[in-house]
Amino acid sequence: MAKATIKQVAAEAGVSTATISRVLNSSGYVSDEVKNRVMLAVNKLQYQPNAIARSLKQDKSFTIGVVLPDISNPFFMTICRGLEDVVQEYGYHLIFCSSDELPEKEAQLLQLMTEKRVDAVVLATTGGNEDLVARMSAAGIQFILVDRSLDLPGPAVDLVAEDDVNGAYELTKQLILQGHSVIGVINGCMGVSTGQDRFVGYLKAFTEAGMEHEAAYDYDGKFTESGGREAVRYFLQMAKPPTALLSFNNKMTFGALLELTENGRDIPGDIAIASYGEVEAARLLKRSGIVYVDQKPYELGIKAGRTVLHRLEKGAESSEAVRDILQPIIKKLES
Amino acid sequence: MAKATIKQVAAEAGVSTATISRVLNSSGYVSDEVKNRVMLAVNKLQYQPNAIARSLKQDKSFTIGVVLPDISNPFFMTICRGLEDVVQEYGYHLIFCSSDELPEKEAQLLQLMTEKRVDAVVLATTGGNEDLVARMSAAGIQFILVDRSLDLPGPAVDLVAEDDVNGAYELTKQLILQGHSVIGVINGCMGVSTGQDRFVGYLKAFTEAGMEHEAAYDYDGKFTESGGREAVRYFLQMAKPPTALLSFNNKMTFGALLELTENGRDIPGDIAIASYGEVEAARLLKRSGIVYVDQKPYELGIKAGRTVLHRLEKGAESSEAVRDILQPIIKKLES
Repeated sequence: MAKATIKQVAAEAGVSTATISRVLNSSGYVSDEVKNRVMLAVNKLQYQPNAIARSLKQDKSFTIGVVLPDISNPFFMTICRGLEDVVQEYGYHLIFCSSDELPEKEAQLLQLMTEKRVDAVVLATTGGNEDLVARMSAAGIQFILVDRSLDLPGPAVDLVAEDDVNGAYELTKQLILQGHSVIGVINGCMGVSTGQDRFVGYLKAFTEAGMEHEAAYDYDGKFTESGGREAVRYFLQMAKPPTALLSFNNKMTFGALLELTENGRDIPGDIAIASYGEVEAARLLKRSGIVYVDQKPYELGIKAGRTVLHRLEKGAESSEAVRDILQPIIKKLES
Repeated sequence: MAKATIKQVAAEAGVSTATISRVLNSSGYVSDEVKNRVMLAVNKLQYQPNAIARSLKQDKSFTIGVVLPDISNPFFMTICRGLEDVVQEYGYHLIFCSSDELPEKEAQLLQLMTEKRVDAVVLATTGGNEDLVARMSAAGIQFILVDRSLDLPGPAVDLVAEDDVNGAYELTKQLILQGHSVIGVINGCMGVSTGQDRFVGYLKAFTEAGMEHEAAYDYDGKFTESGGREAVRYFLQMAKPPTALLSFNNKMTFGALLELTENGRDIPGDIAIASYGEVEAARLLKRSGIVYVDQKPYELGIKAGRTVLHRLEKGAESSEAVRDILQPIIKKLES
């Protein structure tokens, strides 16, 4: 098919060429009905000044790449929902990919984002790609780290996250206040900042209280539901089982609750629970008294979105790295 | 900055121009380290034969638009995860947007997908845009409807969904077999095929069993958790409350369970529950005996991904519409 001209498109849609321009440049009022007719004509005739052609001219793709562990994980997707709600009205679109907590897969996806020429990359990192991120950032790629930080060799990049050390510190103090001294810790991924920082916060509260940490009471739950289940099986068979569990994300907490319930254990009668992140399902347990860090993923997403706009719309390409850290709030389930 | 040539990029990366081509066209072996260096040089010098420029030449963007009610809803995102896992290795990327169950917002998003020249649109529709979808489809835009069907004026488009009528029919029969005749129905959105079809399936089973449907026992729960809570409040204040609830999605079921638990009701002692879609949280309730349709969102996503590839990779652009309907499976929670 020969290349269509704007006149042919106007004829096909039954409107003026000025209207075609208005629609394609989103300038001036055009009714939805007419817009629709124009876009169908543009598509039918394969008319070129489309988003792709224009993005070449503007050297902007209006696309933001989002690389996160798993697009079916509600915690991360609630962050993304906040991000979407902020950037959508500025005409940006989101490409998502799952890294599956695999550093090699994450590295491939980041390279691909360069290929796609996204305007910015929002990254909830699996860790392990510090060098790559530093090099890409030095080459001009705009990074916004979300939820998980990275210790980069070189200048810092934007970060929107929670104070995980403090959250875990306050959470642990609640268990200590309740009189617990034998606490089973269900750790997340220790290669990820949130996994590390939460453990650090626990250690701080525990040693501050004059107690001695024993490695036998740590279990590596890898941030997964099955990890939480396995941790409970491990702790229950100990000669001196813990009187409380401290779980460092909601998936592991849910797994632990399932395993405890199936084993006929009462919460908190037999064992108390503290969770980094709310487990909505726990509201079905009566008087469980679970204490938890009330995470705000939607708020994180809103803040990440604002940081993206700050970089892409406000001409702040080269200003100092943003560091926006939310202070976590501790809550208790009472029902 | 003047346009960079391939030679300048090769010099910057310290490789041959042939290597640059190999990397940009993903042809032939190049080590990750070199690939990485090349992409950084391409980016630094703003070299143009990038994905966008090539997609213009190929008239393909390798992007698939996904329009669904809410990107933070795990059911839909699990579908998307299946889709991602199938299409990613063919080089396709996914742009997601949330329609919020608003037909007007969905219409805007669909127009925008035309603008972005996505190769296909995967749509979990809110309903109400039948004319627009039919026109876009006639203009050559490849649609794959997922989970929710549309009654289009004109030729059908591809559909990957469940047999909702049959699922709800079998689910209702379970409650009837248990001896229930006063059943409170928590309906979803009636403007969406899944909402309609599930109600139709219930009516079929109910009338087949010789029982008479009373509209007073239907509550419009709008597929939301708060809708499920409200439905329970409504049913509990009836002079003759239902002995069983039939809820048409997992969010409404979860809301209903929360409201019942908070009101001290025992499940199934006081009231039995049947749910279209599993509620994982219900596994925390002992012996609840909840019957449910075991939905398979990941499988739906895999099938949708295969349909996308069938259209975009197998040269099946103009063959008959695909109709891939999963038969639902009924399960019972025993713990």
